[in-house]
Amino acid sequence: MTLHGKSLIAGQPLDGGARLFHAISPLANERLEPAFHEVGGAEVDRALLLAEEAFAVFGRAAAETRAALLETIADEILALGEALLQRAHVETGLPLARLTGERGRTVGQLRLFAEIVREGSWCDARIDPALPDRQPLPRPDLRRMLTPLGPVVVFGSSNFPLAFSVAGGDTASALAAGNPVIVKAHRAHPGTSEMVAGAVARAVAACGLPGGVFSMLHGSGAEIGIALVRHPLTRAAGFTGSRAAGRALFDAANARPDPIPVFAEMSSLNPVFILPGALREHGAQLIEGLKTSVTMGVGQFCTKPGLVFGIGGNSFEQFAENFAAAMRTAAPGTMLTAGICRAFHDGLETMERVPGVVALAMSDTAPDATQTHGEPVVFATDAANFLRQPALHEEVFGPYTLLVDAPGFSELVHLARHLEGQLTATIHGTADDLANAAELLAVLQRKAGRIVVNGFPTGVEVSPAMHHGGPYPATTDERFTSVGTAAIQRFARPVCLQNVPASALPPELLDANPRGLMRLVNGQLTRAPIA
Amino acid sequence: MTLHGKSLIAGQPLDGGARLFHAISPLANERLEPAFHEVGGAEVDRALLLAEEAFAVFGRAAAETRAALLETIADEILALGEALLQRAHVETGLPLARLTGERGRTVGQLRLFAEIVREGSWCDARIDPALPDRQPLPRPDLRRMLTPLGPVVVFGSSNFPLAFSVAGGDTASALAAGNPVIVKAHRAHPGTSEMVAGAVARAVAACGLPGGVFSMLHGSGAEIGIALVRHPLTRAAGFTGSRAAGRALFDAANARPDPIPVFAEMSSLNPVFILPGALREHGAQLIEGLKTSVTMGVGQFCTKPGLVFGIGGNSFEQFAENFAAAMRTAAPGTMLTAGICRAFHDGLETMERVPGVVALAMSDTAPDATQTHGEPVVFATDAANFLRQPALHEEVFGPYTLLVDAPGFSELVHLARHLEGQLTATIHGTADDLANAAELLAVLQRKAGRIVVNGFPTGVEVSPAMHHGGPYPATTDERFTSVGTAAIQRFARPVCLQNVPASALPPELLDANPRGLMRLVNGQLTRAPIA
Repeated sequence: MTLHGKSLIAGQPLDGGARLFHAISPLANERLEPAFHEVGGAEVDRALLLAEEAFAVFGRAAAETRAALLETIADEILALGEALLQRAHVETGLPLARLTGERGRTVGQLRLFAEIVREGSWCDARIDPALPDRQPLPRPDLRRMLTPLGPVVVFGSSNFPLAFSVAGGDTASALAAGNPVIVKAHRAHPGTSEMVAGAVARAVAACGLPGGVFSMLHGSGAEIGIALVRHPLTRAAGFTGSRAAGRALFDAANARPDPIPVFAEMSSLNPVFILPGALREHGAQLIEGLKTSVTMGVGQFCTKPGLVFGIGGNSFEQFAENFAAAMRTAAPGTMLTAGICRAFHDGLETMERVPGVVALAMSDTAPDATQTHGEPVVFATDAANFLRQPALHEEVFGPYTLLVDAPGFSELVHLARHLEGQLTATIHGTADDLANAAELLAVLQRKAGRIVVNGFPTGVEVSPAMHHGGPYPATTDERFTSVGTAAIQRFARPVCLQNVPASALPPELLDANPRGLMRLVNGQLTRAPIA
Repeated sequence: MTLHGKSLIAGQPLDGGARLFHAISPLANERLEPAFHEVGGAEVDRALLLAEEAFAVFGRAAAETRAALLETIADEILALGEALLQRAHVETGLPLARLTGERGRTVGQLRLFAEIVREGSWCDARIDPALPDRQPLPRPDLRRMLTPLGPVVVFGSSNFPLAFSVAGGDTASALAAGNPVIVKAHRAHPGTSEMVAGAVARAVAACGLPGGVFSMLHGSGAEIGIALVRHPLTRAAGFTGSRAAGRALFDAANARPDPIPVFAEMSSLNPVFILPGALREHGAQLIEGLKTSVTMGVGQFCTKPGLVFGIGGNSFEQFAENFAAAMRTAAPGTMLTAGICRAFHDGLETMERVPGVVALAMSDTAPDATQTHGEPVVFATDAANFLRQPALHEEVFGPYTLLVDAPGFSELVHLARHLEGQLTATIHGTADDLANAAELLAVLQRKAGRIVVNGFPTGVEVSPAMHHGGPYPATTDERFTSVGTAAIQRFARPVCLQNVPASALPPELLDANPRGLMRLVNGQLTRAPIA
């Protein structure tokens, strides 16, 4: 498959501006062909205008049309075959097995949202039929449901080149809700982005929808990223990436004359609390599990545990020693980009300079800079020092974690209270441990979107009950998830129709309930039609 | 009943600072006793600390406890009897009949939220049971539900001294979700606020809950209002008032190190589109209905129609003439405060200076400044001028409306496209009119949170299907409503519990489903327990 190196606006490759960039393979630090053309403000404007135009059709399209689009995108992605995985591999350095799994997740997400859209109850239809004889005043007929917002901007993320990029979870949920999508491709995998964008555009065409339903732009985040969020026609944005970039987008969105939501998933330390019983009874398993969780994907998961709290004493010291030994045997791996690799090493240097922090262990294998290697590393400190040093509360993206020993259980709770917002928080404990940990559990529920017991936070299930979100800075809006079916709720708003005649109602709000939705009728949840 | 003039922190009247203020009755422009004590930053801090402390209990309280609290508040408000209505009357100038109705609505809202909390399905419980044998990886047990945020700040509004003030819709929905509430009392009705705050505090005590569940502070919005929103323990805020004040709170909340949501309901013109058939067939009724809707409550409803669009020609001219005649017969009325009355007259002066705008009619009765009167007024302009003059797109709070004639239907749609966000948009049309108005309806659904057909936007039903919200500047977050049962969703966030043992699960997430909630289990909505 030949790559054209262009942005795709409403299905058409666009020559774009004079500025070019290349993907650099982190596997061998080498420049990949072809050159990609950056676009500027004019193309942002064009993509948004076409998205807005397409919204007039797509925003009112039948649920079946939306579901078919999502499924067709999945089929078109699979039809790209091995070429997609190969390109993603050289662009990101991620192993083919991982990328095959990620493609499965991507396609699975698209199909899952197709099911959600087809079933339809997500739209939260509510009907209060008229009560013309009510005293002192009649009640009008009120019918409310969630409707799409309009054009949504999605930022591809570096660490999930398929599942959180061009046709990833944000795009799937925004399309599912009926919104046109404009993707700002991540510069680390422009070829992968082009291939997937082509698949989406073919699906849009195959479903007879206007091309403006989907565009994908290449360019710099600081320029076209901000321009996309500021554009008057943009109604929302989804982002996964660094805290600084996410906050910049969030601030730009809120400084608009008409602020819009930015769902940025940014930064999380994913603290793990190891209680004494678990340490005693499952120490060896804990070491193996923690090592896998910290190092998998070269530590480049947003749910990587970057903090491990235990209660000091012999057994936690022994645990730390054994964990350090295990981490020494973990091999360095190729990180996603030279920039991420540099940031990782800068982060380690910062840690080394923090008073009271010890570098406990580092991989026995030296990292190879020509392969953009990140090496597994463990640091350690104590609770009092952790509370004193703000640097220790910052995420280090890569195969790094920090062990923190506390004098006792009440100090563990105190540490938990002083954490910033997190995507996840984990407790390892026996039944006895947990029976006495109610306060810790309660504190952690304030701090994190997902609480894991006796497991590890990496591995985020795509399912109805998943919540992948959390208080700031984990995300900019703790009320919404970016993974799982509830992610669709980010891209919809309610509209109430008062006394609108049946001829002008959408099927979701008709008395007969032709779609068989679960609806709130007169305050009662029911799939029954209104008699 | 003797008023003490003090803020109420966790049930205790607080002496507060040296700065005093008085309520001024708009009925006779006279100072009312007693003096009220303003508080400052120290009291803000104290109220938040006590709220946070109370949250440890209240945030985990059983649904029945929350429901009982809401019902007890309702009872305590009713127990204040006529004294409450009398004080509200002298403080706001609103007639006793209106206040009696508003008290009914306030009590009704509290009881409605009690029902919602008791039924419980609002918490959107979702369970994906473990699949230990799934290939390639087992699925963990995932259980997710909405949980309260923590301390919520509510700003009392001037125009609903009961229903959107101390124990109004924001407070009721925040408490219903399990959040402690700190109310910043509106300075226009401090005595009413004190009485209602006392009722709430008595209910908190009667239910055996910690006093910090509720506090009410007197002070200046620019000072303690901003301090409340900036306080690190505040998790969300609800506001109803002016665009400038709402935006200031929103900006302060987003400038925090950890931004929090501010649900501000601010500004809406509530455009009414009169189509030719309706004009022809129901002209007289339209005039009567519109007059009532524009002048009721002296035009001080957020849903007052401030814009009326029609298609020019003889019949719309005739309508305008007859409407003007009707408005001349409408009497001036006492506005809520001298400041609101002044702003209304300033707004009229601004309109008079806008080129191409005609003052069509004004009440035949001269307004009495000593009674803080606002007088019904109608202005008129044409479509082209409306698009040219930004001043005409600003809300004038009071018994004012602007008639705009457009050359034809397509220009009506064009006008609709150029509106800012609105709480409501109304279409009057016959069946034939409406059959040809699909595009107008679609455009208006982008612009407004509620679409009214052949009715008037004033009169906001408190019910499950109501949506009282809309795109900016109608509100700062179009995804949420401030009226109706869905308002509870503003003050909750999901938490997902992974592999948490049954002994540590809340009843909402237990297999047995002891509360009989509608839950999403394995992606299916059901009230059945998990076998």
